[in-house]
Amino acid sequence: MRVLGIDPGIAIVGFGFIDKDGHKLTPVQYGSIETKAHTPSETRLLQVYESASALMDKYKPDSVAVEKLFFNRNVTTAFDVGQARGVIILAAAQRGLPIAEYTPLQVKQAVVGYGKAEKRQVQEMVRMFLKLSAIPKPDDVADALAVAICHAHSIVLTNKLNGGPR
Amino acid sequence: MRVLGIDPGIAIVGFGFIDKDGHKLTPVQYGSIETKAHTPSETRLLQVYESASALMDKYKPDSVAVEKLFFNRNVTTAFDVGQARGVIILAAAQRGLPIAEYTPLQVKQAVVGYGKAEKRQVQEMVRMFLKLSAIPKPDDVADALAVAICHAHSIVLTNKLNGGPR
Repeated sequence: MRVLGIDPGIAIVGFGFIDKDGHKLTPVQYGSIETKAHTPSETRLLQVYESASALMDKYKPDSVAVEKLFFNRNVTTAFDVGQARGVIILAAAQRGLPIAEYTPLQVKQAVVGYGKAEKRQVQEMVRMFLKLSAIPKPDDVADALAVAICHAHSIVLTNKLNGGPR
Repeated sequence: MRVLGIDPGIAIVGFGFIDKDGHKLTPVQYGSIETKAHTPSETRLLQVYESASALMDKYKPDSVAVEKLFFNRNVTTAFDVGQARGVIILAAAQRGLPIAEYTPLQVKQAVVGYGKAEKRQVQEMVRMFLKLSAIPKPDDVADALAVAICHAHSIVLTNKLNGGPR
């Protein structure tokens, strides 16, 4: 099955499609949707929505996993990221795709094995899991792939618990 | 010209269409889009997007004004409201509609005349401006109409400053 991982944002949205075959994970496509600063937010939202929709139509994921972000201080940023997240989730919902959400803690636990892992460790594990020659850039892309890996692992676990295929 | 005012949310979205003819404001249609609790957020976002899109197609506003909210404490709520706001702004952007944003302070100043007005005073002024027999319920509807009135007043002011029609 194919999983799309998303690290949402308004300036940069990281995305990563990976295929899961048993325990084997294969990267299919990954990269970022970027919008220009000093552009009206409605234009940026439209660009994020259209790019995300086009990617879903092209790479046809079976499910979508989105990073659930927390900000302690900047509520304005939370609004902006929330808006971008909203249009990406909408694009998935319009295609009937199941949507899963994971906190950074859950992603770190799934990818590295403990929740206080450093960003760099997560990125290195992403590189190893997917047998990439280098850590994908910008960070948002590696983060999106980490979310996709986290989701792929969760699916395996859920299937195990349910006695289904691994 | 016709203005659509929006008070965004995930459980209740208030909306109000008003026509502005010179200084005269006439209510066209107002109400709320409501989504059920305990429903997946992607389903709720899809409902908000589809209802907002249908309203824009039916009542064809010339511009859209959205309340810009601030939360001091609850960042999770900021995310949820941000997501709903994102899909509403997307619907407007897909129709090429100009989008204006106003803070609660700006709305109060425009509707009542000072920024520290009580909620009830704002609602009473909305009722008077639009010659309604009662204050619209729930509060989100009155809030949406207040944003629409604020935007209508701003347009008049902008036109005055530019020497254009009033």
